Amino acid sequence: MFEVIGERINTSRKNVQKAVAERDAAYIIDDVKKQQEAGANFIDVNAGARIGHEEEDMKWLLDTIQPIATVPLCLDSPDPAILEMAYQMVEKTPMINSISLEKDRFDTMMPFLTGKECKVIALCMDDAGMPSSSDDIVARAVKLVEELNKIGIKTENIYIDPLVQPISTDSNKGVMVLDAVRAIKSKFPEVHITGGLSNISYGLPQRKIINRTFVALMMDAGMDSAIIDPLDVKIMATIKTADMLLGNDNFCGNYLKGVRAGVIES
Amino acid sequence: MFEVIGERINTSRKNVQKAVAERDAAYIIDDVKKQQEAGANFIDVNAGARIGHEEEDMKWLLDTIQPIATVPLCLDSPDPAILEMAYQMVEKTPMINSISLEKDRFDTMMPFLTGKECKVIALCMDDAGMPSSSDDIVARAVKLVEELNKIGIKTENIYIDPLVQPISTDSNKGVMVLDAVRAIKSKFPEVHITGGLSNISYGLPQRKIINRTFVALMMDAGMDSAIIDPLDVKIMATIKTADMLLGNDNFCGNYLKGVRAGVIES
Repeated sequence: MFEVIGERINTSRKNVQKAVAERDAAYIIDDVKKQQEAGANFIDVNAGARIGHEEEDMKWLLDTIQPIATVPLCLDSPDPAILEMAYQMVEKTPMINSISLEKDRFDTMMPFLTGKECKVIALCMDDAGMPSSSDDIVARAVKLVEELNKIGIKTENIYIDPLVQPISTDSNKGVMVLDAVRAIKSKFPEVHITGGLSNISYGLPQRKIINRTFVALMMDAGMDSAIIDPLDVKIMATIKTADMLLGNDNFCGNYLKGVRAGVIES
Repeated sequence: MFEVIGERINTSRKNVQKAVAERDAAYIIDDVKKQQEAGANFIDVNAGARIGHEEEDMKWLLDTIQPIATVPLCLDSPDPAILEMAYQMVEKTPMINSISLEKDRFDTMMPFLTGKECKVIALCMDDAGMPSSSDDIVARAVKLVEELNKIGIKTENIYIDPLVQPISTDSNKGVMVLDAVRAIKSKFPEVHITGGLSNISYGLPQRKIINRTFVALMMDAGMDSAIIDPLDVKIMATIKTADMLLGNDNFCGNYLKGVRAGVIES
């Protein structure tokens, strides 16, 4: 089953930042409920944008969301101290967003993750920057899986983010990541593939048709999760449709449910 | 480059049948021009629906279309006598639609095709009916390529139609044809893959989102042609977008051209 990580509760979004600054719990609760109704399987929570307020903002957000959350949370911060606090506050096994191979992040996140029960997003980023080829993405994914396995995180709890890059800079960037995803899934059938998709369309007009066409291609390659806005009806409709076409929807049940709910339109 | 075979000039379409019956050349010319402007690479011409009139209707259609055709025609008939007449009438090397492994069709089409300069659509159909597995599709494609090669038709001029089947009857029907297309392209890199797409959504509501999501997946698998309505703006937009994402659009040129022409919208 494809897993949607709802990306809306992020203080870099203007309305969310305003709600957090004003401690407007009703706004946050309403947004989370809408994401859950739209099919989010995780709710990402990122309180990083108000500099100097991340700890109190994250605490307030979790206090606000926790009572109405029907799905697990995805705790999104680069700061292990914030993540440790958040980890203690949640009831359902959370997802941690994220570790990478950048030395600073890797060295601070590994001790935090050691012994934790959690899922974790692992970015194919290192100190050299974004990956430059399919082989490079795959090599970074292999390193991340091996290192996380060593500290007890099972492969089935690892969500590799291959880092989608803009096709406007190089017409090969789509095939590069599609090939990498196929290779990673072939090497580690149990690993998950996730990530944002909107980078693919950076610099181009009419971005949403690019993003949703790309998610179908990525799903065909093996992507089984994405960090997206579940209230974007068209991308959710494409995900349900592609899931059906790829053989993951017995008797077209989820597709037909989506049509009846009015969220899948030609 | 993805090749669109425009399917509109078919007397089984009510308006086309009326225009043909009334010898309304202006209607036909206008339709063909619109298909060409929308990006059709071939114009399919099928005059089969008015029983007893196919020969005169095909002749009139070709007389009407030929002077304004800027792309080759796809001559669509089961009758070699009609195809022979049509073949003599066209100026550009045509595509022939179609041969299959059904004994009657195979035995009548092979003598017609022998020694002809043409492209040919080859359906993975035999007297047992539709293919029942990926391996079955591949075996039929191999047989078609081998037989056509024997009579001098080069692999690069063969357009295999793997016969898309409804996902509503079996949730594996999408993966079945996707896997088959990958296997056929791996065995014969020069062969083309074409076909209609709308069968995939037969029996389901909101069919067009299924058809256009499926075309993206099929393109990823290796489909490089389709028999569609080029005036369906949304499926054409998905094809242009997928072509870009799959690395076939340098500097996103065709995509940007489509956006400027107003035919690609989010």
